[in-house]
Amino acid sequence: MNVTVRGRSRPFRTVTFDAAKNSVQLIEQRLLPHEFKIVGTKDFRATARAITDMVVRGAGAIGATAAFGLAQGARVFRGHDLKRFSAHVEMVFQTLAAARPTAVDPVNAMNDVRRSLAQGQTVAEQQSLALAAAEHFANEDARHCAEIGRHGAKLIRNGMNLLTHCNAGWLAFVDVGSATAPLYAAQAQGKRFHVFCDETRPRSQGATLTAWELAQQKIPHHLIADNAAGHLMQRGEIDLVIVGSDRVLGRTGEVANKIGTYTKAVLAARHKIPFYVAIPLSTIDWDIKRGFDIPIEERQEHEVQGAWGVIANPKSEIRNPKWNRRVYVRVANPGSPARNPGFDVTPAELITGIITPVGIFPPQALWKQRHQLGFVI
Amino acid sequence: MNVTVRGRSRPFRTVTFDAAKNSVQLIEQRLLPHEFKIVGTKDFRATARAITDMVVRGAGAIGATAAFGLAQGARVFRGHDLKRFSAHVEMVFQTLAAARPTAVDPVNAMNDVRRSLAQGQTVAEQQSLALAAAEHFANEDARHCAEIGRHGAKLIRNGMNLLTHCNAGWLAFVDVGSATAPLYAAQAQGKRFHVFCDETRPRSQGATLTAWELAQQKIPHHLIADNAAGHLMQRGEIDLVIVGSDRVLGRTGEVANKIGTYTKAVLAARHKIPFYVAIPLSTIDWDIKRGFDIPIEERQEHEVQGAWGVIANPKSEIRNPKWNRRVYVRVANPGSPARNPGFDVTPAELITGIITPVGIFPPQALWKQRHQLGFVI
Repeated sequence: MNVTVRGRSRPFRTVTFDAAKNSVQLIEQRLLPHEFKIVGTKDFRATARAITDMVVRGAGAIGATAAFGLAQGARVFRGHDLKRFSAHVEMVFQTLAAARPTAVDPVNAMNDVRRSLAQGQTVAEQQSLALAAAEHFANEDARHCAEIGRHGAKLIRNGMNLLTHCNAGWLAFVDVGSATAPLYAAQAQGKRFHVFCDETRPRSQGATLTAWELAQQKIPHHLIADNAAGHLMQRGEIDLVIVGSDRVLGRTGEVANKIGTYTKAVLAARHKIPFYVAIPLSTIDWDIKRGFDIPIEERQEHEVQGAWGVIANPKSEIRNPKWNRRVYVRVANPGSPARNPGFDVTPAELITGIITPVGIFPPQALWKQRHQLGFVI
Repeated sequence: MNVTVRGRSRPFRTVTFDAAKNSVQLIEQRLLPHEFKIVGTKDFRATARAITDMVVRGAGAIGATAAFGLAQGARVFRGHDLKRFSAHVEMVFQTLAAARPTAVDPVNAMNDVRRSLAQGQTVAEQQSLALAAAEHFANEDARHCAEIGRHGAKLIRNGMNLLTHCNAGWLAFVDVGSATAPLYAAQAQGKRFHVFCDETRPRSQGATLTAWELAQQKIPHHLIADNAAGHLMQRGEIDLVIVGSDRVLGRTGEVANKIGTYTKAVLAARHKIPFYVAIPLSTIDWDIKRGFDIPIEERQEHEVQGAWGVIANPKSEIRNPKWNRRVYVRVANPGSPARNPGFDVTPAELITGIITPVGIFPPQALWKQRHQLGFVI
């Protein structure tokens, strides 16, 4: 999507690969919305760290990053021994898989790359196939998101107020996004609507990333505290909810997504507001049998105890020019511990539909439709 | 309740009056939890400003502050003309009533003071009666909270995990608190339990004030993001919810409270977790006929766009000693506007009971019980 850099609007992708430098190129998302910067990782361990530290985050984006990371790691192997190369690739794979244990996309993406790579007869050939597969994965990710947009845009009517949670925008994918894809597609079709962005504490991805994206694309929006959506629904101010997901269970239709998603789904169901989850097919997990078994990452306490931002005058946009970098402020009582589950699981009964690149399905229908969805299980 | 100041635990009240200085003495709550400081207001306009700016906040505390503010304003009148004095008192009353339009307590408290004052035969006598009535109001507020504690403590069993939202603690009253009163009473009875404090964005009163209170009283607790309660309920980690209220409708049992309360009530109902609202009787509004008619304050955008805190190292408690004062940081995308409703309304059907100083009632029973509750309507 487009970003205005030094007054000029230019197209960017969230994740690309610089083959000459053997480096994954990422938008440094932790600096957004205050600074737009591309960073490169020097090796696959740095790529894994970028995933863990959330330089890059979001289902598709970390999938593509891991795919490129696997190719990046494979490419540094010196020698011709295929068996030793294979052990090396396995080590790289495990390192990248451990970077974000709740997400299924890195593992799926890397499995793709590994399958392609296995077709090669030599180490050099496998290295080159790995990179081609990673590039293919990234391009497919962008194409799938565009298809999500095409299907999802049908749900958006003129004058609607939408709600979204966290950032399942183009920054969470290689391009276009999942939950945002229907918005960008509807906008391209000339539809007029308004979006409420949940702040999405503790990391505030809604306030920082989704709001930045929508502002860059000139889509009318307002931020709200995570506490406010219930009230707005009660007053009839929200017509449609679209969120993304880190993992959708193909067997049950349950949806793991950023902490707070479940709450919004419960509220939407109470107010009979349609609640959609937009995902590429790679987000579907066909193995796990029930949502309770999805590992929920418990993140660091300081995320809840404080916030990151730029020192500013609260009543104006004027900032102290000495402080144009983000700082961490401790908001909470010093001494008070925090619990910080990063994700929650929403049951299928609360979800109106799953928007995929191949159409919109009731969550309970995924399993029955698995062959149509292109899966052989 | 007790506060540890320079290593010594001393008893404090949230609001007191210094008659010699004709000044309302307040705990400056915007500095908590980083600094404990008592501030005095120089006149009733400064007292109204302290309510608007949330130097003092919470139902009982702003009630007592307004009562003292009315006495403070009455006491500066010079002359003997009762009619002119009465007009002056009315002006003071209106100034203080306008300081927080959603709250009913300041108006109720000032009506008490005005009724007492009207018994005096001279201006001097009325001035002195006003102060006595305000002092009486403050003492009664503390006594009522202690009674809420006595009734509410029966709901708390050993090993329970409680959830509370915002701060309906002793800082929100003259002493003891409403939602916290059952906790302090249960602790005094030797019961052992644990509390989850909702952060309560955008002003974070849970993270700053409730957590500070619980830490001062050594009650085991964890902060959580407002997004996390649904997940914890789903996993069986919350047994009981107790919140406060700014206004309970006596006719319908609807509860106006800090934005996000409604969301927690919807979640608790889904998980069959008892949801209680603890209030002094002065919080009951017998006039308004339906919750939809309660005026909901729309607060300033910058509260949602950023946060206040002390610059710190995120991974340790070590702070930069040059920065021990709170600063405002802009978290959100600079150009993105925000909606900021300050309160929401929870319907009676979601509330298990209203804990009052005279017992616990189903919310729908308030109207039938109004005579037992001491009201003549």
